[in-house]
Amino acid sequence: MKFENFLATIRRHAQLTEAEEKRLCSLLTIKTLKRKEFLIRSGEDARHEYFVNKGCLRTYYLDHKGVEHNTYFAVEGYWVSDIYSRTFNAPTLCNIVALEDCELVHISNIALESFLEEVPALERFFRISYQNSLATVHLKQIQLLSMNGMERYHYFRKKYPELDRRIPQKHIASYLGFTPEFFNTIRSKAMRADADTFSDYLGA
Amino acid sequence: MKFENFLATIRRHAQLTEAEEKRLCSLLTIKTLKRKEFLIRSGEDARHEYFVNKGCLRTYYLDHKGVEHNTYFAVEGYWVSDIYSRTFNAPTLCNIVALEDCELVHISNIALESFLEEVPALERFFRISYQNSLATVHLKQIQLLSMNGMERYHYFRKKYPELDRRIPQKHIASYLGFTPEFFNTIRSKAMRADADTFSDYLGA
Repeated sequence: MKFENFLATIRRHAQLTEAEEKRLCSLLTIKTLKRKEFLIRSGEDARHEYFVNKGCLRTYYLDHKGVEHNTYFAVEGYWVSDIYSRTFNAPTLCNIVALEDCELVHISNIALESFLEEVPALERFFRISYQNSLATVHLKQIQLLSMNGMERYHYFRKKYPELDRRIPQKHIASYLGFTPEFFNTIRSKAMRADADTFSDYLGA
Repeated sequence: MKFENFLATIRRHAQLTEAEEKRLCSLLTIKTLKRKEFLIRSGEDARHEYFVNKGCLRTYYLDHKGVEHNTYFAVEGYWVSDIYSRTFNAPTLCNIVALEDCELVHISNIALESFLEEVPALERFFRISYQNSLATVHLKQIQLLSMNGMERYHYFRKKYPELDRRIPQKHIASYLGFTPEFFNTIRSKAMRADADTFSDYLGA
């Protein structure tokens, strides 16, 4: 069933009745994207929340010098949208583009807000998801202050092996805040060194 | 009443019955802190969620060189805790210290989690709070890429006049990622210039 993964994810934190799940599914549609196709472009309004059934996407900010800064990646089981645009009803600041052919489950913000008012049990799912995201963002902020480039690269590879395998290395470099040249140096060093000698000292 | 501000904040997003509010209040206690006293020290477990009734607090990460990096400020009506420690049951990475004498409402994480299971209506309050925080963090991340130091300083002063007034400027400098020297240069320039000429171009 096309919404099976979506429902399995919801069920991890929220208990909806069968009727509520059926009603939620009636609000969902499937969207497909070809590789390199844009889901959202900066300046647009983010009117939907997306769940990744298949594929891989990249969120990036394009600065005034034309440099792309990656801020987020999404693969199967992840959600993707511009939370800034959605929360503050403002034009989106970022671009979201498919790195592979994608199949997404989507729900409009209006339908989602109205469903949340109707079924408070679903609030729990989003509360826990957002809390986890905030905690992860906080950890990333502290890592920028506490780890050097090599340590952050090793942490990323260990924590997100799936992303490391599927996402072009230049995009990971941008996500970690490296220039491509700095990243090449780090990668060469990492290939020579024994990865086990790098302690994952934040333990997360 | 000592929980009046707390309840007024909750009511902005969640509708609890009178009995539920009464039950919630029975789980709350008041904690006071003197100026310079610590609420949490790094390495401890964050076992409570705090709401500021009165006063002002600063969250910071202390790096291995002994430099403090401010990550968050809280005044009346704000919440404060270490979300990383609370979410992942890990020792806290940061320190939280009182900048003024404080009165805090606090609830233990265990009591809060159990109340949320009992009263899903409260999930809505935290879902919206965390969503707003995530959107704000995302905006700050983009500002670091899109604005120069002067623009970020003006944005902060305009967006948070209360924090600008009450928090020592050296702490604001650390929050904005400036060295004290760089901040002094920027502040002198800002005092000479007409603040109106700096466009708040993210419009938030």
